[in-house]
This record gives sequence, structure tokens and C-alpha cells, in this order.
Amino acid sequence: MVQIPKQSAGRPAPVRRPVPTSADVARLAGVSRATVSYVLNNTSAVRISEPTRRRVREAAEELGYVPHAAARSLRAGHSRMVLMPAPAVPVGPLYHRFFAELQSELGRLDYTVVQYGSVGLRGDEAARAWAELRPVAVLVPGSGLGPQGVAVLKRAGARAVVTLGPERVEGAHALLMDHDRVGHCAGVHLLSRGRRRIGVVMPEEGGLEIFSRPRLDGVRRALRDTDAMVAELPLAYEEEAAARLAGRWRSLGLDAVFGYNDEYAMLLMRALQDEGVAVPDETAVVGADDLMLGRLLRPRLSTVHLDLPSGRDLAELVDRAVREPGAEPETHEVLGARVVHRASS
Amino acid sequence: MVQIPKQSAGRPAPVRRPVPTSADVARLAGVSRATVSYVLNNTSAVRISEPTRRRVREAAEELGYVPHAAARSLRAGHSRMVLMPAPAVPVGPLYHRFFAELQSELGRLDYTVVQYGSVGLRGDEAARAWAELRPVAVLVPGSGLGPQGVAVLKRAGARAVVTLGPERVEGAHALLMDHDRVGHCAGVHLLSRGRRRIGVVMPEEGGLEIFSRPRLDGVRRALRDTDAMVAELPLAYEEEAAARLAGRWRSLGLDAVFGYNDEYAMLLMRALQDEGVAVPDETAVVGADDLMLGRLLRPRLSTVHLDLPSGRDLAELVDRAVREPGAEPETHEVLGARVVHRASS
Repeated sequence: MVQIPKQSAGRPAPVRRPVPTSADVARLAGVSRATVSYVLNNTSAVRISEPTRRRVREAAEELGYVPHAAARSLRAGHSRMVLMPAPAVPVGPLYHRFFAELQSELGRLDYTVVQYGSVGLRGDEAARAWAELRPVAVLVPGSGLGPQGVAVLKRAGARAVVTLGPERVEGAHALLMDHDRVGHCAGVHLLSRGRRRIGVVMPEEGGLEIFSRPRLDGVRRALRDTDAMVAELPLAYEEEAAARLAGRWRSLGLDAVFGYNDEYAMLLMRALQDEGVAVPDETAVVGADDLMLGRLLRPRLSTVHLDLPSGRDLAELVDRAVREPGAEPETHEVLGARVVHRASS
Repeated sequence: MVQIPKQSAGRPAPVRRPVPTSADVARLAGVSRATVSYVLNNTSAVRISEPTRRRVREAAEELGYVPHAAARSLRAGHSRMVLMPAPAVPVGPLYHRFFAELQSELGRLDYTVVQYGSVGLRGDEAARAWAELRPVAVLVPGSGLGPQGVAVLKRAGARAVVTLGPERVEGAHALLMDHDRVGHCAGVHLLSRGRRRIGVVMPEEGGLEIFSRPRLDGVRRALRDTDAMVAELPLAYEEEAAARLAGRWRSLGLDAVFGYNDEYAMLLMRALQDEGVAVPDETAVVGADDLMLGRLLRPRLSTVHLDLPSGRDLAELVDRAVREPGAEPETHEVLGARVVHRASS
């Protein structure tokens, strides 16, 4: 750990220059505040001469004036801010690409995307904190937000609340991302490969239950009315933990494992190989996420490929919802899943 | 790609209830707006009877009133918002852990962390957009912000600007993260393993030059005044690109490669092995980041382990800078780097 030494400046705080306001700009340019606002917001509806525009811009430049988004939104009654809670778990490249695309599409529609650091805040309490920023729309990944939280956000002026998660929340648009489907794909695939005793990795790392529980349920659903069985396999993302699980593998009598995602699957596959368990002959292994790295191991890792909604479609949904705040909430199933069969299963 | 169908609600927007204000709460509770503010902000400096406090809280509850952070910051002259531009490239688990820790430590000090989606914005133009939110402090990872941008932020009321990047920017606190050091570590290690013809992977993916250039420079610095040479190896993060590079490997006459990071190193190592190049006998391979997955390949991947500053130290620096906005900007070297020698080198 690199240490930052604690310095004590030990001198009095200087007198700070006040932050320049649009009134200061108006005074210096010899125009009204309204004119300053028209010029700096590039309003074309009002005719203002080019010399006046120039004078306002020069005065703003000289004073170092920047418009205050909050003041503007107080006047307008709402902002152009789309608030998204920052994800609580590390995001993979898949989600990152999705988020960057969403952000750029919302930017094209003149919204500003702000991710809210929500460590330690949960459910409707988090909604209250978000509401204080008066966003025009809120996009909530994961679960935890309830109808009360949606109501708090709407009363604070949010015209649209969109959830990306396992279930609908009253009053919000729902993009259903049903991870049950991911497990179901893996289960059907392993059945079709002749496997009947299927382990399912359950990560011990916190915050992943919202994905791992429905994935497990999906495997169970695939196996319903067959003679196959499921065993839950709690696993920490550490080599030692994987080695311990691999060490007692043969006593478990399993012939396949769904590894939760590619990272856990790769960790366990390596530990099984080190223990002398043949993959896929003795045990078939399937991951999820279709990471590049899964193709670098031997055997190449079979996986469930996920399809997220396009950032453009989602940005357009947000914009539509902002324009028509009274419309019925929309519900869409947006998570696609399909197996990519490689050598490990 | 999952499609979201375009719905047209086709009905008129309803009349929206106005957003309740503190004046509404004051009216319902029969108290002044100042009393509402004291009660809802838990100000203990003012004596207010418990029945009055209860009346205010019940009125706020009934109306669904949430304080407006912007209005509060307009009154106070500044906010408690710490703004961080969202990283432009996918962040690994290392950075994610650092960021989560920073966020939780700043939360403990009563700041709100907001990540600003800055796709398409660069340098001082980005600074202007951030300034509109009137943050009390701005933490800028990477490079691109200039002294002008710092001045814009300060004039808009930011009491502290902290950069995490390769160099100092006038007026800002600097946490220097010198990636030269990462390459230097790798170069010294490969030299000590008897290697003299060292390839350095340069990712073709955009946005990584701010890391890859200094890492390359660091390798060069390590080799200065020796008989060893460096070759730049442009590489896209795709199996086909790695296979093409591996296909002409023997014509390059290299005996070692620093793979930029673990992911590119793993990709290239696998392609070299598939081409029949013995690792490490013919070519030594070193990555960087010390990812778990590097230990799953055979041979296990040697790597440069990075040490980031602690979130607590950084949060305390921000808080100190906010309290003493006139103090001299601090400069700290915060990136630690050391080689973890495994079987691939």
C-alpha cells in the first residue's frame, strides 16, 4: 500500500474570490440577465445582435463564468440529468461496452449521465439520496428499489424511472434481465451432453446473489422432470478454495459443473485438472459471459453468451419516457442467452 | 442484439403534480421555512421542541418532500459533491476495489461521490461541463486536464482539484501514477533473466496509450546502456491478431516479451504456444496487473504487481484540500510496482 503523508499546511485559509454569477456577466456586458442566459444557452428563438452576443461571451470569458446546472434546473423545473447508481460489483467488459454506448447515445440526445456512488445505500433510502439531485430520469440496474422509492423519485421531479433487473417495480419502466434464462441454457446444454449430476458454483463473494440465485433456479428448471440432480457448490474466488473443492471432487460424484460465469469456471477447471480430473470426459465445465480468456485455456471453455439491449434502444426508451411521463410503464424482456459449445463440455 | 420495440403512447401528457418544496412543508406544519430546514438537516445548534420536529417530519412525509441538493448548495455556496469523471476504458477488479474503497471513505466523511459520464468530452471542455454541477472537489484520473480546466473548476467553486495521472497540472493536487515504473520493472526483470531482444506489446485498442506509452518508455529506460534492444509490437485484443503475430515470431528474433498487461500477455502466450514457441525457453513472457487468471495458465504468468494508493488516504487528502483550499497543491508518487516472478520468464 502506498502511503500519502499527512501534511498540515498550518496557515490561514485565504479570502476566496466569490464564484461569478450571470448577474456579474450581465453587469460587465451592460445587458440584462435574460440576455446573458439567451446568449450562453444558444437560444435561437430570440433575436440578439452579433456584437451583443460577442460582448456577453467576452464578459463570461473574462470573469470565468460557467452556467450553474442546478440553478438552471431550478428555473426550468427539471434537469437533463440521467442518474444511474454505479454498479456495486466490478463490471466486466460486456457491461462496460453497454454502458459506454448508452452514455454516448444519451449524450447525443442532450442528456448528461451521472453515476451515483451508492456504496452503503440500499433500496428506498438510496432513492431518497438520488432524488436530492433532481434527475429527470433514473436508470436502476439490479434490484432493491421498491414502489416507494419510485414514488419518491417521481415526486422529486423524475419523469422516468427505468429498472434493469429481475422483476417489474410498480410505477417504473422495466427492462427485465432474467438470469434464470442463463442457467436454463447451461442446464439444457449439459443434459443434452448426457450429464445427470450437475454442480452449480455459487460465488461466496458478496453482491452476486442477485445473479447467482436466478442462474441456479434456471438450471433446476431445465432439469425438472428428468432424472438429473443439482448440487450447490459454494466457492470463493481464490486458488486455495478451488483446490479444496477439487480435492473432494470425486466424493461428490458429479459429472458436470456450471461455473456461474467464465471466471469461476476457469478457476475450478484448472483446479480439477491439477487434481487429475479429466475435462470434459469425467466432468464437463460450462461458464457464462463468453470472455476471450475462456478460449485461451485448454480445453477451450464452453460458455453461455449474453446479449444485452442496445444502448441506442435504451436511450430512446428513456427519452420517450421523459417526453411522455404519464404513459403506461413499458416492460421488455431484454436479456438474450445462448450456449457457445467448445471443448470443455 | 435484443430489440426494444418503439411504443407510441398516443395520449396526452397528464397534468403533473408540482414537486413539493420546503415552503409547502412549512405551510402544512405551520412553521417557518427556516424551521423546516433546521429539522430536516438535523441541525442541533438550534433548539426546537420535539412536538414541532415531529410535526415537520410528518408534513414532509405526507407531501413526499425530499430536500433539493442543488438548492441547498446554492444557499450554502458549495455542495458536498465530489465529482469523478467515469473512466473511459473498462476498469479491472484492481481499480474497482480502489474506487469502491475511495467512495466508501468519502461517504464516511459525508461527501457524495458522483461519476460523470464523459464520453466524447476532452480536456478543458470536459472541465466546463463538470463545473456546471458545482462540485466541491474534482478527482480526475488519466490525463487531458490542463491548467485552464483547473482554473475553470476553481472559479466555479471547486475547492480542490486532484489529478491521478502521469504529471502535475498547475493549480491541482497531483497523485502521480507513473506507468514508466511498470515497464521499468518488467525490463529490469527480463534483463536479469538473461534476455536481450525484448518485444513490448502496444495495444491497438483506443484510449490505452496513456498507459502503454510510458510503460514502453520504462522498458527502454531499463535497457539504456546495455546491449539489449526493444521492438514495439502493435496488437489488437483478438485471437486472430495474436495468431498472426505468433506466425511471424521466429522472423522477429525476440527472446522475451512484455505483454502490456496480463490480458494481452495471456493472449500472446497462448498464440506462441500454439505456434510451437517454447515459453519461457525460447521466449520469456511477462504481464502486468497480477490478475488471478494469469496463475491458471501453464506456465504460470510472471507479472508486474501494481500498488494503488489507499482509498482512505486519498479521501483524507480530498477532505484536507476542501478544508484548506488556499494551501499549496500537494504532490505524491502513489503507484507502486514490483515483479512477481512465476514460470513464464
